[in-house]
Amino acid sequence: MEISVQMVQIFAIIVSFLSLAVAAWLYTWVKSQPSSNPKIAEIGEYIRKGANTFLRREYMILARFAGIAAVLILIFLPHPIWKGEISQNILMAVSYLFGTVLSALAGKIGLAIATIANVKTAEAAKKGIKPAFMTGFRGGAVMGMAVVGTCLLGVTVVLMVVGDATSVLGFSFGASSLALFAKAGGGIYTKTADISADLVGKVEMGIDEDDPRNPAVIADNVGDNVGDCAGMGADLFDSNVASISAALVMATSFGGAAGEKAVIMVFAYAAIGLLSSIIGVATARIGKHGNPTRALNSSTYVTTAIFAVLTALATYLFDFRWEIWGATAVGLLVGTVIGITTDYFTNDLKPPVRAVAKASQSGPAFTILSGFSYALLSSLPALIGIALSALLAYKICAPLGDGYGMFGISMSALGMLSIVGMIISNDAYGPIVDNSRGLAEMGGLGHDVIAVTDELDSAGNTVKAVTKGFSISAAGLTVISLLGAFMSEVNTAASELGIVEAGKKLIENFDIMNPTVFFGLIIGIAIPAIFSAMLMLGVDKNAQRMVGEIHRQFDTIPGLKEGKADAKPDYDKCIDIATVGALKELIPAGIVAILATVVVGFIGGAEAIGGYLTGNIASGLLLALLMSNAGGLWDNSKKYIEAGNHGGKGSVAHKAAVIGDTVGDPFKDTAGPSINTQITVVSLVASLLSVLFIQFSIF
Amino acid sequence: MEISVQMVQIFAIIVSFLSLAVAAWLYTWVKSQPSSNPKIAEIGEYIRKGANTFLRREYMILARFAGIAAVLILIFLPHPIWKGEISQNILMAVSYLFGTVLSALAGKIGLAIATIANVKTAEAAKKGIKPAFMTGFRGGAVMGMAVVGTCLLGVTVVLMVVGDATSVLGFSFGASSLALFAKAGGGIYTKTADISADLVGKVEMGIDEDDPRNPAVIADNVGDNVGDCAGMGADLFDSNVASISAALVMATSFGGAAGEKAVIMVFAYAAIGLLSSIIGVATARIGKHGNPTRALNSSTYVTTAIFAVLTALATYLFDFRWEIWGATAVGLLVGTVIGITTDYFTNDLKPPVRAVAKASQSGPAFTILSGFSYALLSSLPALIGIALSALLAYKICAPLGDGYGMFGISMSALGMLSIVGMIISNDAYGPIVDNSRGLAEMGGLGHDVIAVTDELDSAGNTVKAVTKGFSISAAGLTVISLLGAFMSEVNTAASELGIVEAGKKLIENFDIMNPTVFFGLIIGIAIPAIFSAMLMLGVDKNAQRMVGEIHRQFDTIPGLKEGKADAKPDYDKCIDIATVGALKELIPAGIVAILATVVVGFIGGAEAIGGYLTGNIASGLLLALLMSNAGGLWDNSKKYIEAGNHGGKGSVAHKAAVIGDTVGDPFKDTAGPSINTQITVVSLVASLLSVLFIQFSIF
Repeated sequence: MEISVQMVQIFAIIVSFLSLAVAAWLYTWVKSQPSSNPKIAEIGEYIRKGANTFLRREYMILARFAGIAAVLILIFLPHPIWKGEISQNILMAVSYLFGTVLSALAGKIGLAIATIANVKTAEAAKKGIKPAFMTGFRGGAVMGMAVVGTCLLGVTVVLMVVGDATSVLGFSFGASSLALFAKAGGGIYTKTADISADLVGKVEMGIDEDDPRNPAVIADNVGDNVGDCAGMGADLFDSNVASISAALVMATSFGGAAGEKAVIMVFAYAAIGLLSSIIGVATARIGKHGNPTRALNSSTYVTTAIFAVLTALATYLFDFRWEIWGATAVGLLVGTVIGITTDYFTNDLKPPVRAVAKASQSGPAFTILSGFSYALLSSLPALIGIALSALLAYKICAPLGDGYGMFGISMSALGMLSIVGMIISNDAYGPIVDNSRGLAEMGGLGHDVIAVTDELDSAGNTVKAVTKGFSISAAGLTVISLLGAFMSEVNTAASELGIVEAGKKLIENFDIMNPTVFFGLIIGIAIPAIFSAMLMLGVDKNAQRMVGEIHRQFDTIPGLKEGKADAKPDYDKCIDIATVGALKELIPAGIVAILATVVVGFIGGAEAIGGYLTGNIASGLLLALLMSNAGGLWDNSKKYIEAGNHGGKGSVAHKAAVIGDTVGDPFKDTAGPSINTQITVVSLVASLLSVLFIQFSIF
Repeated sequence: MEISVQMVQIFAIIVSFLSLAVAAWLYTWVKSQPSSNPKIAEIGEYIRKGANTFLRREYMILARFAGIAAVLILIFLPHPIWKGEISQNILMAVSYLFGTVLSALAGKIGLAIATIANVKTAEAAKKGIKPAFMTGFRGGAVMGMAVVGTCLLGVTVVLMVVGDATSVLGFSFGASSLALFAKAGGGIYTKTADISADLVGKVEMGIDEDDPRNPAVIADNVGDNVGDCAGMGADLFDSNVASISAALVMATSFGGAAGEKAVIMVFAYAAIGLLSSIIGVATARIGKHGNPTRALNSSTYVTTAIFAVLTALATYLFDFRWEIWGATAVGLLVGTVIGITTDYFTNDLKPPVRAVAKASQSGPAFTILSGFSYALLSSLPALIGIALSALLAYKICAPLGDGYGMFGISMSALGMLSIVGMIISNDAYGPIVDNSRGLAEMGGLGHDVIAVTDELDSAGNTVKAVTKGFSISAAGLTVISLLGAFMSEVNTAASELGIVEAGKKLIENFDIMNPTVFFGLIIGIAIPAIFSAMLMLGVDKNAQRMVGEIHRQFDTIPGLKEGKADAKPDYDKCIDIATVGALKELIPAGIVAILATVVVGFIGGAEAIGGYLTGNIASGLLLALLMSNAGGLWDNSKKYIEAGNHGGKGSVAHKAAVIGDTVGDPFKDTAGPSINTQITVVSLVASLLSVLFIQFSIF
């Protein structure tokens, strides 16, 4: 059967709207669920207000940043304004802004549903695990469907209107730069509040996690929403856009009929991925006393299987190349394997978590050392998976012709991210049920209800490990294909500028033995390290301020410690500290990463950037895997001890495990996942500025 | 003036013997110092015996390993025995064994002098800082002079006798493989004992660091000797040999007169480096109330200056190329700058250490988070330094002709390591004075004497940070040049085997965009991570066992807690636990690193190995810098608090800082410095096996 680019784009738009419609229906469904408890409603309102305030203030700052970036793009990209046509620059700047707006929207939608679903889930938990699970899951699915629908819609519209893959990169950069700051800001906020609340509440005073006396408890719940929901939504929006963009740049570089065919495949596969996620979400079910972890995982596997079958069908019907389907399938398969191995290192049924729990009996130093060591080990399977899928995807597709090997890698990344709609749904489920747990406790719904929410929460944590492994690996592959996109941008620009003859390439390879490449590589290693360090120092400083404030409130508000009815903590003050601190710390780290790219590019040109991006991938993958898995491992070790092992709550082991968990919190929720976005942003900046680097570098 | 290869080799041998003579003289001097205190003599004897027992048992295991490796070399290298001449294989195997023996000897000498100098230094401390410093320093210098003298002698003899740079690689591999295990074994031993002694003694019971009641106290002092002295001696022996070997491989690859000239430069510069160190050691002085840190640093700077001047003189006299002198000078300069920046992050007069100390007031999680973050930041200046020196050295030398750029990098590494004699002297000084502090306390020499040893010890810690920055960076540069050596080995082998025509190259580059190279790169990232994880888990497991034993002794030996005169702890049992545990854990980590190299080589051939070595360098440098600096930072934060800040000893901040220090111990003394050796070993294995990889790989 024949299919044109336009037809497939229309198909993509239809699926996008279907996805948005499903999101709208699920939103209405969640909203229609009962909520009668006035106490919960009141606290829920506090959380909603706090979250919205933060997001509004964050977006105001980011709007300024985006404005400045748009002006710079207008002046310099794709060509300095005095050298090229201004219309191109306008299109690029508009694409960029469109990317930032849609990314911000993704965050906003996530926040809107999460702050409703948390209340409804707490309420539903009174009726048992089944209704509570469905409410939490469908809340998450609103976000999943909305984000991926918006994403595919955005990319398709930009390419249809502008008709130029470089502008898609601009759109992608818009999404990524906003995601970078949203993730960083949200990540700092959430962990500032979480750590401070835990340290004073759980560790020092021995009160429960969500005890309403704790002045930071609302800020903590706000943090779940702005960090884990809004930040994560922007983050996966960005990965998804970046993977499609990289594939499109590669596809269009073939030119002619081959290029069209490749573009068609990219859209077809991306749309089928979204369609599979819609089916997966719609069919998610849980028995009356069912296991929520199993329910989440089985939806994921269903989605994966549907994707594999539907893409095979499309490949057969439209006569796509089976090699490329193979590359996509490799990505999907390896993603699943990585998810399973990540689970091994962070699941409390498996040896690593148990070993760390056992080591905690000898004190916190052993918790840290053993957890850190296992997390280092955990990088191996994921790295082998990434290495193998890149190698296989390349080798499978390379025989199709020049450039197809690299295109295969980008399709492999697309395959890994194909089920991203499902992944976001699962991921957003986590903070929603976490919040509902807090609401159930603060609302005094009693032990049985809290137990239900605890079970839901634990499933969220387990599934999170799997989805995180997935998204880090996908980001890894995406960045590899962005490296390919960078090279093709450089060569296109060089021949447009007349630096090389038409058809010739300025850069044939990035040779490690070339000292300029090597120079970039070594500098590139440092960037994810300093980026994550700056974020963590932000949390550290901010949390110290907040701990001071919590102490102050307990010391000065009479009756607060004893829990007298009229002694109310000043929740707003804590929310304010978290907000102000996060907003102050979120910009510098991102700016450093972007500026370093610019400096290296102007020192060593395209070759140095080739090495630099490689160094970024190398240290970024290592640190992201290390930090995410260490955090998950420590979190679950603590939970394992709290379940009554090694002395249970209050024991020496528990105290040590709580310290491990506190260290792990910014590892896994601030620094780790932000690194993904950082390496994507850096790659996109490099591609966009390539035309400047080849003209104006020192070496 | 004209100079032949033979003349310069004879010069190198003369300088080597001079160095050994100085070592012998210093040894006699240290030994002739008075020691009258019977209590100290008794404890010193305990330590000496424990250390010798460990070393003997370790060497017995390593002898078996070396024997097996030698047989494998005999069969397979440089060519499978059924394909080449057996005489070459015999020479290679003998060179390998010679390397292991000399490396073992370096460790043995270090241990012998350290276990004498500790007693003498404690004794000398009664007379004041000047005699104590001189005893400690000269003890360290015995090791410095002996190690570097042996090293230069060994390389020169191997090249003179065998006349083939590949055999020098074999010799270097012998030295490295032994160093790998010695460093790993010693590192596990020392931190097992140190952590356990501290946790039970300082943290739980609140007794002093070197309280003789603590059953692990002798094991702790033994650890200083076997880990920090013997292990470190073997480690720097290895780096030094590797840097000279890499330069020699590069030099001989030029062939003809140019090759000879390059070989002459390598030997001349290496010999002048040793000569400068001898002068630096001989002129080291301290005033009566002088500052030991300043004394150590000024000797280092004197050595550096002498090296720069003498090499310039040699370059002038013998008409060497100034470009190459420039590359060497760049290495030396950058090494110094890296040392200074490392000092910034680990010196308690500077902001990072103070910030971590301040953060400790909020509890151990903040100690860990802030220390880890600053350590991540600290990687930046060192990485920039390495990147710049590689780039500059290459760019300065590249105009001299094909291959000279890479030769420049290897000479830059040689420049950084030129003053290694001085560095080892300073480094070995550390554990000697650390031990003497323990002896002074256990021997009851009183507060004033302990204060003297404390001051010496603190100088040792500060200088250690600088020398560690130096040696990690030098290892980084060395491995870059080993990457060059690997490529030239591959091409030589390919043309010898007739795979390519004479004069043609099998491998022109290691292109990151080549999926096989990329595959190797990603796998390579994981290796230093799992290697260091395995070592730390070794410490972790072992220390848990030892903590159990210390508890058992305190619980079952009557009167021990109270310090009754007749209640003696069972020191030997703790020494035994440390020994057995270290020996059990040291082999697997090293084997994994070596095996992974072999597997990647046989999967992806030389191209995959090119990427693999790069991945190793990337993650190895990052982790080594991170771990070494984090450890130093935590250690000094603790000391800063112990000096009376933030509540001093016993405060909340102090308890948190002790936990940080405990985590940092295996970071900085087990994993961090071993990574250097690991990446060197992996590079050497790759070069040696290159001939097999190009014939028998899958892809």
